[in-house]
Amino acid sequence: MRTPAANAQLALLLEVAGTPKPGNVDRARDLDDLRFEQFLAGAVGARDGLTRAATGAPVGEAFETAVAGMATQRGGNTQFGCLLNLVPLVAAAVGDAGDADGVAAADRDGPPGREAIRGTCAATTVDDAAEFYRAFDHVDVAVDDPPAGMDDLDVRRGAAAVPAVRDRGVTLWDVMGRSAEATPPDGNAREWRRGFPRARAAADRMLVDDGPALDRVARAFCGLLAEEPDTLVWVQHGEAVAREVRERAAALDADLAAADALAAEFVDRGINPGTTADVTAAATFLALEGGLPV
Amino acid sequence: MRTPAANAQLALLLEVAGTPKPGNVDRARDLDDLRFEQFLAGAVGARDGLTRAATGAPVGEAFETAVAGMATQRGGNTQFGCLLNLVPLVAAAVGDAGDADGVAAADRDGPPGREAIRGTCAATTVDDAAEFYRAFDHVDVAVDDPPAGMDDLDVRRGAAAVPAVRDRGVTLWDVMGRSAEATPPDGNAREWRRGFPRARAAADRMLVDDGPALDRVARAFCGLLAEEPDTLVWVQHGEAVAREVRERAAALDADLAAADALAAEFVDRGINPGTTADVTAAATFLALEGGLPV
Repeated sequence: MRTPAANAQLALLLEVAGTPKPGNVDRARDLDDLRFEQFLAGAVGARDGLTRAATGAPVGEAFETAVAGMATQRGGNTQFGCLLNLVPLVAAAVGDAGDADGVAAADRDGPPGREAIRGTCAATTVDDAAEFYRAFDHVDVAVDDPPAGMDDLDVRRGAAAVPAVRDRGVTLWDVMGRSAEATPPDGNAREWRRGFPRARAAADRMLVDDGPALDRVARAFCGLLAEEPDTLVWVQHGEAVAREVRERAAALDADLAAADALAAEFVDRGINPGTTADVTAAATFLALEGGLPV
Repeated sequence: MRTPAANAQLALLLEVAGTPKPGNVDRARDLDDLRFEQFLAGAVGARDGLTRAATGAPVGEAFETAVAGMATQRGGNTQFGCLLNLVPLVAAAVGDAGDADGVAAADRDGPPGREAIRGTCAATTVDDAAEFYRAFDHVDVAVDDPPAGMDDLDVRRGAAAVPAVRDRGVTLWDVMGRSAEATPPDGNAREWRRGFPRARAAADRMLVDDGPALDRVARAFCGLLAEEPDTLVWVQHGEAVAREVRERAAALDADLAAADALAAEFVDRGINPGTTADVTAAATFLALEGGLPV
């Protein structure tokens, strides 16, 4: 059976391979400046950081290591948001078992639940926040401007913001809280603060779905896209487009043939629902921990 | 930069994703009983064994670990032959540096050369042979009957053959020598015994080729398929079909559009040039060690 670090790496691979995922790189589609093989390389590079998450390293340190490894390909930011979600989930899956990267799935008690996940996230520290900021030095991440009066905590400053993070005593949990309350609300931060309710529900749907794992991933993506406006689309194209994308996804009713046509349109329009992909990766990890057959 | 273990895992992923690869699972095609996502899971599972190969474990032990991990998916034998090739190449890439899994590619001196590779293979022991036989217990591998008088060393006996291996004092180098001289000659064993000349030449071609890495992988596969009859096709369909496949591949002249049509035909006919895929994975690893851009 696979360890949590292995399941997290496999979740990265299944997420990008799932097709069709309207607007995103998938098994059938590249974008102009981002290719499928760069996601494969990103997943390979992230493994060491995921293993650290499974062997007791602090969430921030494991995340920074994973992002540094992910960035050893030429596509830039392939899986920053996916890793932000996966690292605490891996840590929560291991839980109190300490060094448990060798703990096979069969010996674990299903995927981690809301309390374990939320507890892991809520326990993050100022050091974790500092590592989170340092991770932004490895890749360009598309994020919105910070709120008024928060310029010194702009994540795009990377390591340069760490003194301000320490001065203000901001934990990673605090950072996620502010992003969850911002406009647009960051979809990953909202998951972090609430114990990943969307990812857990999507994982449950994947486990009762049928057919090949990659089809289940694609349907999970379409279902998540239909739930909420995607943060990345909102940042890049504005709220109206993000709401249109959500409505178009809802109209698909998880029909993959219809999703294929929508994928072509979204790629043409440069609409890339990246945050929904991040939540899909989290859901896929939880489904794998719950026994998703591959 | 990626470590040798990471490059080997990425080679597994790029190999299966390269398309079109006539007759094999690739980014665009599944077979009836073998799906793309199972190769992704196989590559994830193999990582620990590859890391062992990079950190000084004996070749046989690292291989058995990699195969055991590879087998944690439901497709059966996805990458047994690929791993048989990759494990000694990873060990040779690390060479005398001892525990060098942390040695980044930039600090290494290009891919390992013929002497380093052949030396690693020639130094394998009876213990390595025993682990090789044990690896057959994890998956069904399509191999031909053993030569007359060699039934006790039939690899399909798995661990049951280990006493005979020890009685006869057979090393893994010896096992590969016998397979290289058998009829049909095993394509991977021939590479093992000769310092991987085909993989090294294909890696050199990949490095001077241009375009995306996955296109280079596909062209390398087609070129290798055009060189020699594929062992697996020979075992499964006979020598005449294996020779026809080689000739059809040679006629492609590495044109990927023509290869796409051939892929459809080969899949329909159940022709699966698996040994050529194994050599392609080896070539891809060597190309990555030589700086193949992804």
